[in-house]
Amino acid sequence: MKILVAKGAGFCFGVKRAINISFDIAKEKKTNVYTFGPIIHNPQVIKKLETLGVKPVKDQNDLKRKKVNALIIRTHGIPLEKMTKLEEAGYEIIDATCPYVKKAQQYAKLLTTEGYQVIILGDKNHPEVEGILSYAGADSIVVSPDESLPKVSKKIGIVVQTTQPVDALKRLLNRAIVQTREIKVYNTICISTALRLKETEKVAGQADVMIVVGGKNSANTTQLANLCRSLSVPTYHIETPDEIDKRWFGNVEVVGVTAGASTPDWIIEEVKGRIKKI
Amino acid sequence: MKILVAKGAGFCFGVKRAINISFDIAKEKKTNVYTFGPIIHNPQVIKKLETLGVKPVKDQNDLKRKKVNALIIRTHGIPLEKMTKLEEAGYEIIDATCPYVKKAQQYAKLLTTEGYQVIILGDKNHPEVEGILSYAGADSIVVSPDESLPKVSKKIGIVVQTTQPVDALKRLLNRAIVQTREIKVYNTICISTALRLKETEKVAGQADVMIVVGGKNSANTTQLANLCRSLSVPTYHIETPDEIDKRWFGNVEVVGVTAGASTPDWIIEEVKGRIKKI
Repeated sequence: MKILVAKGAGFCFGVKRAINISFDIAKEKKTNVYTFGPIIHNPQVIKKLETLGVKPVKDQNDLKRKKVNALIIRTHGIPLEKMTKLEEAGYEIIDATCPYVKKAQQYAKLLTTEGYQVIILGDKNHPEVEGILSYAGADSIVVSPDESLPKVSKKIGIVVQTTQPVDALKRLLNRAIVQTREIKVYNTICISTALRLKETEKVAGQADVMIVVGGKNSANTTQLANLCRSLSVPTYHIETPDEIDKRWFGNVEVVGVTAGASTPDWIIEEVKGRIKKI
Repeated sequence: MKILVAKGAGFCFGVKRAINISFDIAKEKKTNVYTFGPIIHNPQVIKKLETLGVKPVKDQNDLKRKKVNALIIRTHGIPLEKMTKLEEAGYEIIDATCPYVKKAQQYAKLLTTEGYQVIILGDKNHPEVEGILSYAGADSIVVSPDESLPKVSKKIGIVVQTTQPVDALKRLLNRAIVQTREIKVYNTICISTALRLKETEKVAGQADVMIVVGGKNSANTTQLANLCRSLSVPTYHIETPDEIDKRWFGNVEVVGVTAGASTPDWIIEEVKGRIKKI
């Protein structure tokens, strides 16, 4: 059995940066380091960080009566109101928000200042989108990739969840341009997301089965799995090598492997090792 | 034979306005009234105006040694440099540029001020496009509807020739959004153009033959004819009823008629009359 790993699979720039920050802070502070929400969408990485003393908390209530040496903001960012409250509470805040996500937040704010109704293309319940939305005006809306655009009444400004596929943005633009006279759009889609999708498509085109590795709660990993399925390749979305079932590989000559932006190299390597043993 | 005339066929707002201005000026000044370029793209209307003493000139040289009581600027507008020279020469200028074209010119100027590379979607040699281009920065380019977008190096601003179909704008946006991170687009397509295309499509869907009436030099009339041909309906683009040939109507039950924005009602009525006689 031949194993093909998609180029660009695994940790992206923003995730690498956040994990490095977390390791550094863990080393420096030793104890009582918290992340506000899971730092990335990968349960295995979260567990590893916990062994180093870095623990996620759900919200500000969770921090009450805790000694907090440092509070790390997750890659996806958090809503402005929450950030303000944390700052007011006097915590030592280390902002590990992905710089590309931060840009999307700033563009949402700028567009609002310039009088645009802000449209965020993304998944309504994703923390990144909730964060971006908090920087935009009261009339802002989130439109998911397959949703039609509601009636808009003025000039619109568009920003995009960094992990959306560019085709979703094209569809939104095609719908928007017949509804309004003026659009300002910031294509805030992360290049590494686009590359990962493209390379995954390439590998899926050559594979008899696709193994997609990453958090079940990871939007970009789920997107990779959906892409492979749309190409009619049998696809399995796993978090760890333990989930691999040898029955998936009957008559299989080429196994394709890809991984979401929050999947560390060591998990990808373990997955490869497990497949080789079969 | 049944005759169906497309809704919105004939004079648009900007043309009506320009013609009314010309008639008013002709009445007021009586003689030596000139239009800078043909006021609209319809030879029959130009001839009619000539009988009232309103004559087109090609350029500023044509005006030398002429007594000029008033100089009317055509619906399509003219380049800024030419306008400046005419103003400096002290002519009494009556600006009949379509207000929608004027808006496109102003948006091109605004986008340049804001640091965008301006892309004008339209026909390179059309006077409207030449006019808009003169208001945009030195790095501005014109992209025709079927042309691919050249490599752009910075944020881009888009304005559109008012008579382009919206699908051309959608295609341009789809190509542009993968090439740059920021786009500001003004959809300057005139609503009456879009309506005329839509209603023409509707009529063509029910007709056995289509008669498209308007200047052979009129871009929007040519576009109507091309639309009908793309729907596989036998189509004839005529300027006057005299061109009608009864051989076009053998076995025909329904005749569809449409007309460009610069075609006056009296020509449409004459065409209907001629078809009825067959």
